[in-house]
Amino acid sequence: MRMFVSDNNSGVDKDIMQAIIDENNGDAIPYGNDGTSKEAERKIAELFGADVDVYFVSTGTAANIIGIEGLLRSFEAVICADTAHINVDECGSLEKITGSKILTVENRDGKIYIEDIEELLDSIGNEHHSQPKLIYISQTTELGTLYTIDEIKALADFAHENNMYLQLDGARIANAVVALDTSFKEMITDTGVDILSFGGTKNGMMMGEAIVVFDKDLSRNFKYHRKQGMQLTSKMRFLSVQFLAYLKDELWRKNASNANEMGSYLKDELSKLDGVELREGLETNMIFAYFDDPRRDILKDQLGLASSKEGLVRLVTSFDTKKEDIDKLIARIK
Amino acid sequence: MRMFVSDNNSGVDKDIMQAIIDENNGDAIPYGNDGTSKEAERKIAELFGADVDVYFVSTGTAANIIGIEGLLRSFEAVICADTAHINVDECGSLEKITGSKILTVENRDGKIYIEDIEELLDSIGNEHHSQPKLIYISQTTELGTLYTIDEIKALADFAHENNMYLQLDGARIANAVVALDTSFKEMITDTGVDILSFGGTKNGMMMGEAIVVFDKDLSRNFKYHRKQGMQLTSKMRFLSVQFLAYLKDELWRKNASNANEMGSYLKDELSKLDGVELREGLETNMIFAYFDDPRRDILKDQLGLASSKEGLVRLVTSFDTKKEDIDKLIARIK
Amino acid sequence: MRMFVSDNNSGVDKDIMQAIIDENNGDAIPYGNDGTSKEAERKIAELFGADVDVYFVSTGTAANIIGIEGLLRSFEAVICADTAHINVDECGSLEKITGSKILTVENRDGKIYIEDIEELLDSIGNEHHSQPKLIYISQTTELGTLYTIDEIKALADFAHENNMYLQLDGARIANAVVALDTSFKEMITDTGVDILSFGGTKNGMMMGEAIVVFDKDLSRNFKYHRKQGMQLTSKMRFLSVQFLAYLKDELWRKNASNANEMGSYLKDELSKLDGVELREGLETNMIFAYFDDPRRDILKDQLGLASSKEGLVRLVTSFDTKKEDIDKLIARIK
Amino acid sequence: MRMFVSDNNSGVDKDIMQAIIDENNGDAIPYGNDGTSKEAERKIAELFGADVDVYFVSTGTAANIIGIEGLLRSFEAVICADTAHINVDECGSLEKITGSKILTVENRDGKIYIEDIEELLDSIGNEHHSQPKLIYISQTTELGTLYTIDEIKALADFAHENNMYLQLDGARIANAVVALDTSFKEMITDTGVDILSFGGTKNGMMMGEAIVVFDKDLSRNFKYHRKQGMQLTSKMRFLSVQFLAYLKDELWRKNASNANEMGSYLKDELSKLDGVELREGLETNMIFAYFDDPRRDILKDQLGLASSKEGLVRLVTSFDTKKEDIDKLIARIK
Repeated sequence: MRMFVSDNNSGVDKDIMQAIIDENNGDAIPYGNDGTSKEAERKIAELFGADVDVYFVSTGTAANIIGIEGLLRSFEAVICADTAHINVDECGSLEKITGSKILTVENRDGKIYIEDIEELLDSIGNEHHSQPKLIYISQTTELGTLYTIDEIKALADFAHENNMYLQLDGARIANAVVALDTSFKEMITDTGVDILSFGGTKNGMMMGEAIVVFDKDLSRNFKYHRKQGMQLTSKMRFLSVQFLAYLKDELWRKNASNANEMGSYLKDELSKLDGVELREGLETNMIFAYFDDPRRDILKDQLGLASSKEGLVRLVTSFDTKKEDIDKLIARIK
Repeated sequence: MRMFVSDNNSGVDKDIMQAIIDENNGDAIPYGNDGTSKEAERKIAELFGADVDVYFVSTGTAANIIGIEGLLRSFEAVICADTAHINVDECGSLEKITGSKILTVENRDGKIYIEDIEELLDSIGNEHHSQPKLIYISQTTELGTLYTIDEIKALADFAHENNMYLQLDGARIANAVVALDTSFKEMITDTGVDILSFGGTKNGMMMGEAIVVFDKDLSRNFKYHRKQGMQLTSKMRFLSVQFLAYLKDELWRKNASNANEMGSYLKDELSKLDGVELREGLETNMIFAYFDDPRRDILKDQLGLASSKEGLVRLVTSFDTKKEDIDKLIARIK
Repeated sequence: MRMFVSDNNSGVDKDIMQAIIDENNGDAIPYGNDGTSKEAERKIAELFGADVDVYFVSTGTAANIIGIEGLLRSFEAVICADTAHINVDECGSLEKITGSKILTVENRDGKIYIEDIEELLDSIGNEHHSQPKLIYISQTTELGTLYTIDEIKALADFAHENNMYLQLDGARIANAVVALDTSFKEMITDTGVDILSFGGTKNGMMMGEAIVVFDKDLSRNFKYHRKQGMQLTSKMRFLSVQFLAYLKDELWRKNASNANEMGSYLKDELSKLDGVELREGLETNMIFAYFDDPRRDILKDQLGLASSKEGLVRLVTSFDTKKEDIDKLIARIK
Repeated sequence: MRMFVSDNNSGVDKDIMQAIIDENNGDAIPYGNDGTSKEAERKIAELFGADVDVYFVSTGTAANIIGIEGLLRSFEAVICADTAHINVDECGSLEKITGSKILTVENRDGKIYIEDIEELLDSIGNEHHSQPKLIYISQTTELGTLYTIDEIKALADFAHENNMYLQLDGARIANAVVALDTSFKEMITDTGVDILSFGGTKNGMMMGEAIVVFDKDLSRNFKYHRKQGMQLTSKMRFLSVQFLAYLKDELWRKNASNANEMGSYLKDELSKLDGVELREGLETNMIFAYFDDPRRDILKDQLGLASSKEGLVRLVTSFDTKKEDIDKLIARIK
């Protein structure tokens, strides 16, 4: 049965699976020095319209944390929302692997704003305090909201003016590109993002994450960080080939569009129900809504969907969610 | 063309690939709480004839290092051969992730012996020195040799008598079980190994490694170490299903047998050549031989096979190596 | 000239200096195995009325962090006030040295309360989140306030009921004992504190900090953590002898009493001034007051006293502050 | 009674103690921003004839390890002798604090040679291996031997040609300067040492160690590393003033000369005994000799002097050892 807990409940897109099958055609040089991996790196560079450096890894946490480790020293700090994935959902990987401190900013609808960051910079130069060096944002955010392109650019400019980096966690980046009707280049490269966690697993890959760095001088040591970070897979072509299929004929767009549209449909259907109150301003595949008590029990017991103390529940649609899946869900909630 | 640099040059066994394809049948609970992963854990427990704890990860380095991290504090040390994978080939992951020190023992044909370990224990109780806490061995060793079952048992007993653990790196464990004509249970469980890196990637998996712990009290916190170690894959069923296929009808045995037999055939063929001198005592799929200069150039330039200063070259056969592959290789060397 | 920036502006109490001089009487066993260090450990045990374990270190940061490192694994988290010294003033030592995450609770007058901590425990058992394991408080707090003995006991009980520890940062603990008219035993041992950073530097020592652990089973590996943490001083008797002098005839009480009385006197004198508004409820040697603009400039330029954006300034009296020092300060502010 | 286990058995030189006493003259800015600490930094710069950067710390381990942490990333490795202090006697601080790997070279009389280091550089550029980045030597070595100035220069040149640094652990550097009849400038600055652990505790200080960096660009972040490394003492002037006294009128030379001369006298006296065989080539204050069994028991039981399995015993003289102390020792051994 279709789940709505997360978009990682889904399996693998059939075109991506086919690419994996086709890749299984004999011997190859391991550890990413094979032709497929090199081709995937080139295609990603094309997507971003820039001479980027690409490192394939197996989890989103690894993409985030190894990227940060490569850019920071342990006395330097990461600025992010209190709701950030690196702060809440990665079991302290950042602190463990990088030794750095997280400085949180209270989120507003999942986003952070320059005016809230500024006061954290007062500590610069004072050895008693961790030194802010990187701003982390996610797009789509953990609360299903989106930064505008101008907001990303402003954060990047602010970061650079203060000798910091901007990292963007793109676990659901394709959903954001589709929702904003823009391109990867326009949203990431042109805004000045320094480093991207390019996620594919939540949009149809089996296991596909890549660290994308927009200045090769920054990433000249990343190969060592990836290996020391236990993330250098030997048969890497089976990771990288997923990106080839993902980029071919814009499969990413097709999948993200479906997820977003199903999110929109789910939102519409939920809005018709009594005892359900939708949170505003959500445009991708994550829907947040308040449910009354009896419905919360159904969501919890039958569907594994947890709710916050306030009764807020997150429902996530996926690349392969169908209208009938949602109709069944709605029927159950009724 | 067939490569002989490593057994990770190969692709994926077709039965394992089919299992991956079949697993792609709808939604599932992520992060290893799905039915397939649970079933794979049960089958592994059956293989070892013990109530083991199992943690799937994506690389052999991760299996080794997260296992060690789970068992040691940073002031405790790991004892291993100077040639050990954790000492030489993992870019210092052990030091980085665990903070522990490696105490090396000079290998004899890739193996370590109790009499060489004993003097390292003099430092126990003295705070100026790292405290020995875990003995690491690999089976098959890095030099293609094998510990006897008695030797493993003696090392485990010695470790336990001295309040230490025995970790076995089984990157090529199936080849060892086949070569020694034994079982996983007899070689690992019954000897008293505390923790095993159960490798499958080098024997036909796409990406299949598991930490197997023989005392669940030891591993009660391993789920946190795996997550913090950036190794908790969301669609884990695509990792774990590989083990199901691997264990079904003893596919591991079929594959390792082929690799070993091809190793034996390669050895025989090499022994017929002039200018080639085989190292003795090798029984699995890793063949070491000294080549004269012209042949070393061919091996290096045409086949990517590096040689040590002394002219020693490692050649590795795989689960899908065929006699004709070897015949072609021999023809080239001639 | 007398400074009021911190109580570490002061030099060394003359009795403590004399003890250092007297200790310089020939050879001794190094690294804390000398008679003086052993005697100091016994005297500290007497002070707390408990069979405590004592580790002398050279900084307060080391006392806090090595204590935490000894008790936690890296996937476990520390709960503390947002204003906590370990969170704000130690350049990320906690994250670097222990790998653990800090979970902050918004302070109320520098203190934290059980009701604010409780929700952090929802994550227990979930591997995606750092696992709360230790509550850190400071007494005197960073804002010069005090926990009552009942409050400390309640926090200790709450910690233990939830399988956590309570650490107390006692950088200014003597000031607290004096202000609350209690004893070290009553405030620390009897309330159930698990581990104490016993600070002396801010109350007249040259360099005197000790980790005091109230259950020797918890600290059985601390000697290794201290050495690996670069804190095992060779001529340790010159650290430990400071504690002997500090405890003799209750020198700690004499010094802290003076600091507190001078704090009280400073408070009274400030309250008479126009353009100065005192913060309420402060009972030790840290005085917080709002100053108007011209006075803030004087404080900053002539006395090195920084003010927050809101104009709040911290003034600290010391073991050797005299009334005339305060009179001079007041004259200047006028 | 005089001990001969180590030169840190001694107390504090009386001139250094007097400087500490004199320093206790009122308030001062903490954390090394006081006039005394600044003056000590200048005097150290004069001693080395270079615009060095100086960081006072409380232990020799801290000087070594924080220096390395400041220069290396965790995937980079340190090359040193198997007998090196950082490898044997610091409880794995290097691995814990820096995350880096140690690559050992077999010592020859406590020293390492370029020809033995060269093969370690083969791994440069290969992400599977830790990347050699710093060569660590100690002068005087752990075995009481000395590098010539030319040897130090050759190691520095070799390091720099290979994009590495040379660190010199100078726990007993004054003894070496005296023994070689040279100067700090000639032995350290002019040879091209990049970073020095400038030890004073073993030559009469109470607690005096400093990291000295010969290129301020290398150390621009060291203040953060020291603070995060728990080594920023608040009343630092009581550390730094010891260096002022140490450098005044070349107290270091007077003290080291005495220690070396007493070492020489001890050597002479031991050479007259039966059942004692001296190791050759020792020129400072560490004497190594083989003793027969009855004498080893005396050394162990009455004097706390341990012997190796081969019967080798280390005896160390100090800045305040007197001839009569040695005469008494010899009488006992007889």
